[in-house]
Amino acid sequence: MRATLMYAAHDVRVENVPDARLEQPTDALIRVTRACICGSDLWPYNDLPQTPGGRGMGHEAIGVVMEVGSAVERIRPGQLVIMPFAFSDGSCMFCEEGLQTSCTHGGFFGVGQVGGAQAEAVRIPQADGTLFPLSVGEDDVLMPSLLTLSDVMGTGHHAARCANVQAGTRVAVIGDGAVGLCGVIAAKRLGAEQIIILGHHESRIGLARIFGATDVVRERGDAAIEQVRAMTGSSGVHSVLECVGAKSAIDTALGIVRPGGSVGRVGVPHYDGVPGDPKAFYDNVHIAGGPAPVRAYIETLLPDVLEGRIDPGQVFDRIVDLDGVPDGYKAMNARESLKVMVKP
Amino acid sequence: MRATLMYAAHDVRVENVPDARLEQPTDALIRVTRACICGSDLWPYNDLPQTPGGRGMGHEAIGVVMEVGSAVERIRPGQLVIMPFAFSDGSCMFCEEGLQTSCTHGGFFGVGQVGGAQAEAVRIPQADGTLFPLSVGEDDVLMPSLLTLSDVMGTGHHAARCANVQAGTRVAVIGDGAVGLCGVIAAKRLGAEQIIILGHHESRIGLARIFGATDVVRERGDAAIEQVRAMTGSSGVHSVLECVGAKSAIDTALGIVRPGGSVGRVGVPHYDGVPGDPKAFYDNVHIAGGPAPVRAYIETLLPDVLEGRIDPGQVFDRIVDLDGVPDGYKAMNARESLKVMVKP
Repeated sequence: MRATLMYAAHDVRVENVPDARLEQPTDALIRVTRACICGSDLWPYNDLPQTPGGRGMGHEAIGVVMEVGSAVERIRPGQLVIMPFAFSDGSCMFCEEGLQTSCTHGGFFGVGQVGGAQAEAVRIPQADGTLFPLSVGEDDVLMPSLLTLSDVMGTGHHAARCANVQAGTRVAVIGDGAVGLCGVIAAKRLGAEQIIILGHHESRIGLARIFGATDVVRERGDAAIEQVRAMTGSSGVHSVLECVGAKSAIDTALGIVRPGGSVGRVGVPHYDGVPGDPKAFYDNVHIAGGPAPVRAYIETLLPDVLEGRIDPGQVFDRIVDLDGVPDGYKAMNARESLKVMVKP
Repeated sequence: MRATLMYAAHDVRVENVPDARLEQPTDALIRVTRACICGSDLWPYNDLPQTPGGRGMGHEAIGVVMEVGSAVERIRPGQLVIMPFAFSDGSCMFCEEGLQTSCTHGGFFGVGQVGGAQAEAVRIPQADGTLFPLSVGEDDVLMPSLLTLSDVMGTGHHAARCANVQAGTRVAVIGDGAVGLCGVIAAKRLGAEQIIILGHHESRIGLARIFGATDVVRERGDAAIEQVRAMTGSSGVHSVLECVGAKSAIDTALGIVRPGGSVGRVGVPHYDGVPGDPKAFYDNVHIAGGPAPVRAYIETLLPDVLEGRIDPGQVFDRIVDLDGVPDGYKAMNARESLKVMVKP
């Protein structure tokens, strides 16, 4: 089968690889009908050292179940399923609590012996716990939005929850990538009164406004902090959704959060520790966040997608086939594309 | 009047100073009937640079109101009052939310032009918002426990709340000082099932057991982390109360907290940023805490003190008069005393 491998920074190839197959009785095999390139794929795209054998890429997908292992009870061949970016057994104490990203038998796609989803097919460990069956057809018009439930919409929602967004509050979203834009949707969905998007790309800011952003800050660094404070009666925002992961982003987050406020961080941290002390301490700032348990959030968010109340699928602005994946990386890295959908 | 001034590390003196007096119409003046030496006073006791004029010391007190300014409406001369370690106007948006330590007109005793409470009298800014009147006499048998509501009991409670302690959960308390011990009381009060105290002083550990600790870890560093994990089915605790402020303490906190768990930190941070990433991120750990809004917590905790359900006053193991304050610092710094009460 054909699959995407990254061999080093800027070296993405689509190659023939051995067919994905069942390895454990708890596995399923899916034929990928939709996958994505993720903003987080751009970190290795820019800094992956030479990797002999390559790294399997892609952790967001919808697909059709082809085959299941002997221990799989809930998932059946033929089902159309969402594949969240983390796999999880669905039964350990962390899964029971809705923190599937910490599943005791869990892990991430594209890591170690688990392949990536920018491919024709992918093996799904812990299929019963991992996969979420859909009741629509594989070319349903809602497919883009459903696909975001595999990562970016759930991750934006996680940022909003970790940032304790509540009805009537002031919220800032740092980052105008797909996760940040989904964070705007999530903040609006949770009733935020003011939603300030911090970003630099006009087309994305336009989408942020469609999604519910009420204010825009295009500055960076101290200028951004000053502008947010000016917009919020000097005290800052109740909630910051940090959707980038750069040190400058977390510094800005801690600069604009109000005393007693919360920072929900979902950008994979490219900084050491959480900076911001002593301010974060003296202002009693809550800092939370991490990989989103999107498996749990599918149940929360799916009705809003199916009934048209949210439309996160608008983050996709380019569709490629597998052969187009390397160009898709290039376009996203150059910020010519917001988010690329892959139709293998 | 006589008051305590610190001129440098290990240089604490009780001296004659100009009488405290009303300066603003919102001020009150109290005669101090009880004050304390705080664990946090030991930080400057060990590292204060030469300070010409000295720093006024003491931020925990109970006293009798002697005089109030023309704008004070709620507080009257003759009342016995608790003085929380921060003053606050009681009416700004942060006070309304119960975060009086971020009051827009607030501040801390012993800082700048506001004197300390290890003195015969102290000026109370924002008296209406700051002071909490009591209905008992100034020598009531409950005085030690009531005095802890000015700081350490409220701070222990804040650690427990920030660490999201809930009924049936596993909790660890780092530090066996007065705040840590009050944290044990707070965790038990909130229904924790397992309360692990991490400390090294046998007499304090005994008190922790009286207060509700179920387990003791005497090790430090990695050994302490291993032992807590062994006690908790390897996954760690839901809540960590970090009551020290040293880097080693926050490192231990992040080492023993469970995925999805919370660290409530109330030890004044003597570290840069919050270490622990990437683990804190990948485990979705909540980090919260800061100076406790003890003014808010008096209302929560006072009934439990008055009705004898909690007895945090047991943390006092030495009583001195004003002249005994320098020796009190020495004894606390040598860990010969857990907490010193001052009767001016």
